Amino acid sequence: MTRVRIDLNISLDGYTSATDHSPENPMGEDWGALTAAYTGTRTFRSRVLGDTTGTGTTGVDDAHAAAYFDNIGAEILGAAMFGFHTFPDDPEWKGWWGDEPPFGVPVYVLTHRAPLPDLPMAGGTTFRFRSGSIEEVLAEAASSAESQDVRIGGGIGTAREFLCAGLVDDLHVAIAPVILGRGNRVWDDLRGLELSHKVDTEVAESGTLHVSFTR
Amino acid sequence: MTRVRIDLNISLDGYTSATDHSPENPMGEDWGALTAAYTGTRTFRSRVLGDTTGTGTTGVDDAHAAAYFDNIGAEILGAAMFGFHTFPDDPEWKGWWGDEPPFGVPVYVLTHRAPLPDLPMAGGTTFRFRSGSIEEVLAEAASSAESQDVRIGGGIGTAREFLCAGLVDDLHVAIAPVILGRGNRVWDDLRGLELSHKVDTEVAESGTLHVSFTR
Repeated sequence: MTRVRIDLNISLDGYTSATDHSPENPMGEDWGALTAAYTGTRTFRSRVLGDTTGTGTTGVDDAHAAAYFDNIGAEILGAAMFGFHTFPDDPEWKGWWGDEPPFGVPVYVLTHRAPLPDLPMAGGTTFRFRSGSIEEVLAEAASSAESQDVRIGGGIGTAREFLCAGLVDDLHVAIAPVILGRGNRVWDDLRGLELSHKVDTEVAESGTLHVSFTR
Repeated sequence: MTRVRIDLNISLDGYTSATDHSPENPMGEDWGALTAAYTGTRTFRSRVLGDTTGTGTTGVDDAHAAAYFDNIGAEILGAAMFGFHTFPDDPEWKGWWGDEPPFGVPVYVLTHRAPLPDLPMAGGTTFRFRSGSIEEVLAEAASSAESQDVRIGGGIGTAREFLCAGLVDDLHVAIAPVILGRGNRVWDDLRGLELSHKVDTEVAESGTLHVSFTR
């Protein structure tokens, strides 16, 4: 049975980064503090960085990192997560994920620029551009995922659209114990999420708090 | 060495309750969800309710509840926490803490109505009304606490004044895994608190997340 999943890295005060982007620091200067525990895991180092030496943390953070990559059959991204800034004017531009994006599955990109031709990439990723409602795109993504899950990959605006519409089965937040005081707010308009979902809480060796909402 | 301490019960989205007061529900309808784990502890039942039967939870929540009551030599409260609404017009009104308030120590009440005479109560509590700066009142409270600690007992506005002024040595937040979407915001203007304080995170059997900032 396909489940709809979201994973977020947030601060104790409920922010994701991304309002302090700059050319020098495209992810924003707060991104490192939010993701240090995750990017330090053995799974991240192996799966994303291609580090085959076995370095990186194991334990609770790594278990969540491994679960993140498990059983995803399709992904949905907001337009900014594809990186439309020169596409399709520059026919060579294929998003900012490089020649071999890390998805390996169909990736549905929500954009009013659709229809656009599919964009097959090396490694099994195919970008598919859609302008329908989130429910329509989710139905298509779920169908293409077959029995595997659909991840809403971001950004936070897209993730919150799916959350606020009640479309998410599994929300996992990794809370870094830092106070950012700025960024994109995650929790607005989600009062009572603990009533529709079961909540599990866990602390990692790094001090990161992992909270999982499951229905 | 006197330390300045604050304990808060907050939601995952960073709210304390208290914006939904009503005559029928003076603490607000969200208060129960925020404090259920705490009021269920054996320490709370014994210390606050006078339950001598030994019922209530033990474990992580109870350890924090016991620490809450330990080594406090003076307390500071905002005016609303004393309950000024009929004082001093009604000479019988002595705050809403009853004839024997649960403090048992000098309690400094921040109020522009001062000077007012001290109000000694049964059980060792004396209310002392002060209109000076928070630094001045803290200095006096610390002196009267001798080597014990001073608790900033609330409300959240008063707690945040001390936090934002950098006057707090120990902040313990018990985070109930619920999304309230309303209430008083705890974390505003506290960016970087993790840089001036060491942070410890812990999960209780109840699912409550305990985060302690210590310097």
